[in-house]
Amino acid sequence: MESVINHIKSNFDNYVNELMEYIRIPSISTLESHKHEMQRCAEFVSSKLRNAGMNRVEIFQTKGHPIVYGEWLGAPGKPTVLIYGHYDVQPVDPIDLWNNPPFEPVIKDGKIWARGANDDKGQAFVHFKSVEAFYKTNGTLPLNIKFVIEGEEEIGSANLSKFLDEQKELLKCDAILISDTNMFQPGVPTITYGLRGLLYMEVEVTGPNRDLHSGSFGGAVANPINELAKIISKLQDKNGKVTVPNFYKDVMKLSKEERENFRRLKHSDKNFAKDLDVKELQGEKGFSTLERLWVRPTLDCNGIFGGFTEKGAKTVLPSKATAKISMRLVPNQDPKKIARDFEKHIRALAPKSVKVDVRNLHYGYPVVAPLNGNAIKAAAIATSKAFGKKTVYTREGGSIPVVVDFMKKLNAPAVLMGLGLDSDNIHSPNEHFRLENFEKGIFSSAYFLDEFSKI
Amino acid sequence: MESVINHIKSNFDNYVNELMEYIRIPSISTLESHKHEMQRCAEFVSSKLRNAGMNRVEIFQTKGHPIVYGEWLGAPGKPTVLIYGHYDVQPVDPIDLWNNPPFEPVIKDGKIWARGANDDKGQAFVHFKSVEAFYKTNGTLPLNIKFVIEGEEEIGSANLSKFLDEQKELLKCDAILISDTNMFQPGVPTITYGLRGLLYMEVEVTGPNRDLHSGSFGGAVANPINELAKIISKLQDKNGKVTVPNFYKDVMKLSKEERENFRRLKHSDKNFAKDLDVKELQGEKGFSTLERLWVRPTLDCNGIFGGFTEKGAKTVLPSKATAKISMRLVPNQDPKKIARDFEKHIRALAPKSVKVDVRNLHYGYPVVAPLNGNAIKAAAIATSKAFGKKTVYTREGGSIPVVVDFMKKLNAPAVLMGLGLDSDNIHSPNEHFRLENFEKGIFSSAYFLDEFSKI
Repeated sequence: MESVINHIKSNFDNYVNELMEYIRIPSISTLESHKHEMQRCAEFVSSKLRNAGMNRVEIFQTKGHPIVYGEWLGAPGKPTVLIYGHYDVQPVDPIDLWNNPPFEPVIKDGKIWARGANDDKGQAFVHFKSVEAFYKTNGTLPLNIKFVIEGEEEIGSANLSKFLDEQKELLKCDAILISDTNMFQPGVPTITYGLRGLLYMEVEVTGPNRDLHSGSFGGAVANPINELAKIISKLQDKNGKVTVPNFYKDVMKLSKEERENFRRLKHSDKNFAKDLDVKELQGEKGFSTLERLWVRPTLDCNGIFGGFTEKGAKTVLPSKATAKISMRLVPNQDPKKIARDFEKHIRALAPKSVKVDVRNLHYGYPVVAPLNGNAIKAAAIATSKAFGKKTVYTREGGSIPVVVDFMKKLNAPAVLMGLGLDSDNIHSPNEHFRLENFEKGIFSSAYFLDEFSKI
Repeated sequence: MESVINHIKSNFDNYVNELMEYIRIPSISTLESHKHEMQRCAEFVSSKLRNAGMNRVEIFQTKGHPIVYGEWLGAPGKPTVLIYGHYDVQPVDPIDLWNNPPFEPVIKDGKIWARGANDDKGQAFVHFKSVEAFYKTNGTLPLNIKFVIEGEEEIGSANLSKFLDEQKELLKCDAILISDTNMFQPGVPTITYGLRGLLYMEVEVTGPNRDLHSGSFGGAVANPINELAKIISKLQDKNGKVTVPNFYKDVMKLSKEERENFRRLKHSDKNFAKDLDVKELQGEKGFSTLERLWVRPTLDCNGIFGGFTEKGAKTVLPSKATAKISMRLVPNQDPKKIARDFEKHIRALAPKSVKVDVRNLHYGYPVVAPLNGNAIKAAAIATSKAFGKKTVYTREGGSIPVVVDFMKKLNAPAVLMGLGLDSDNIHSPNEHFRLENFEKGIFSSAYFLDEFSKI
């Protein structure tokens, strides 16, 4: 390993230059006009994968932008790691807030400043370089490697799911390695091993068949806004528990180890509340903030509308009111089952004086990789060695559909080896990536491949 | 009286022609381009008031359209009736839905079809003609008469309130007679003697200081939509009573007589529900539908909004949610007092995890004329004679700010002698007015002046 790490150190300046070259391709996936750049970027990725020792590199065309696949399977009997990343980037508006042109990367204050420097060109590139370092140092790799680098992550990965379905055999692996998330705190190596799922419903309450004058009719007919509010108010009890029947039935219990891990993260409720400018936090009784965010299911209204919503006053008693209500789910809740129970529950809560329509807008499964699994353990050792600090284990409150898709479809644990920071301005002007994290990310990746090869 | 009634009968065709002439002036108050027509219409009204025997007629210019005033005070010792109406009309869009040009009145099926035929040129004109009939028949009037015919009712009567304040002495009267509402049912003479008031509030709930990702934050911080829903759900109890402290304290008790009157109106809950397409009505326990609409205060959300309100899904945990909440008030509730109690109540209901802002958008006082007062009694006798049927007494669930202003500022009872029907298409294409109601309206007005003169 020492020679691999030394190789990385002595080639780091070249890596930075290559990353800058990568960044200069304006691969904005959402712009129809950039279709050519997307193709060019996929070719750039291909050539870099070849440099890294991949002996099969293929550009899979899709209905959208191409997916680049690369593999080196020269270590029979050894595990296979699939590395996922994306070469597409976010748009750059508002352009006038950038300190440098977004596709002309600048190095300043130990950071690369450019669109894609972090998300996800910079973060994914660490794995290109760790693999290359092994290959260039030893002429071989410690385990089997597959790369899947797509070009549609920023626009919803519309064609990836089909690709996973069609190429299940090709993509078979023992672990999925992804760097496209953030570290818990600057300098703190972080492995994210679980994601919440999502169930997104829409509830429409209809009272009278038309908008009425609230003077002429108010008091004698159910008001759909008031009734919707009553329904929503009953979806959580006074302890913050969701009241949908069977909601908690399949919820995986938090292990002692996880609880202890989260406690050690020393999350500050005070700072958290201060940042959000709220006097008091609120959530499910009996759980800490991190537990509420990462391992407990919850229910939030994401939108509500009905009646007169402009400035001023209009005395309407509206015909309809609608709420968008989503539930974050945790393993092993099943969004489809919960959708059915939710709908039944809403119907039971609504009075006869109104009609309700309950629609399932979309859903995604929660996932978690076993904390004591080899992939997570190897990643923790690797990142700890690279950053010289104890690695922390986090879960993520949001859903990353790509990750869930990979885990579900390939039936392998995903290791989210995040190298970004909350302050890195991804999706905003002046996106950047710390060179320190770029270098330590390459070390992390290299150590991981080494560790995981020994299982 | 017989000669007066005969005079009306033999001149009725002329009255219809005069009304058609009145209608032909396109006095749409909201159109800047029709300013000249408004002036012309005010002059037309003046001349008709002079014809009716008014010996002082004055056009009061305002910041908007003029107010026409007329008086005949030749009966010292006799009561004074102030007749209110408006000469302005609604716009005519959508013009292509009209069967005849809106300002070219057509007589068909016993009705005059045109914009303003009913609201309020036709309805108010009955009083011009009843007064004229007395004057032409007897050379004098049975009591003192004042006319206030404004030109801004359809755009909010912005300048009338100031006029009432400035001309309190000039407008002093014993009763206010208005025909600008509808009959309870076709052929059923109707006197409306009370109006609900209004208190229109806006409640804004703020949770976190910015919109958050509901995945990353959901479960650990109060959601302003959920909290707003909880607050709204607590504003009424399970019996449909408003929970604002002191809300019912000043509510005038329904008299046995009124309750009996309403009961006799034989309102059909079944038809009411069917028309609104609701399975069940809903309202304050212990009261009938008409009582709920006319004499009981209530609370309705008129609008609600927060978070993502477009089509589809967005996983936002919003910073703010807002509801427009209005209360219909009944005598003797004081909107200012209730606004204070409402705000206190909202603040008490909100948890510490959110901030609330409570705004009073506007309010209006409820009014009621005493049912056993002379004006109401005279109007009931008069309309009953004119229509040959027992008159019904109704109240109105809505607020008519003009009426309230008159009653409050002139300290006199208003008699709403409605001659329209719900099916007359006022404010819509093909507005019309039954010639039968026009003629019986003139009779009603004449009988009223006669009856009221005898008190």
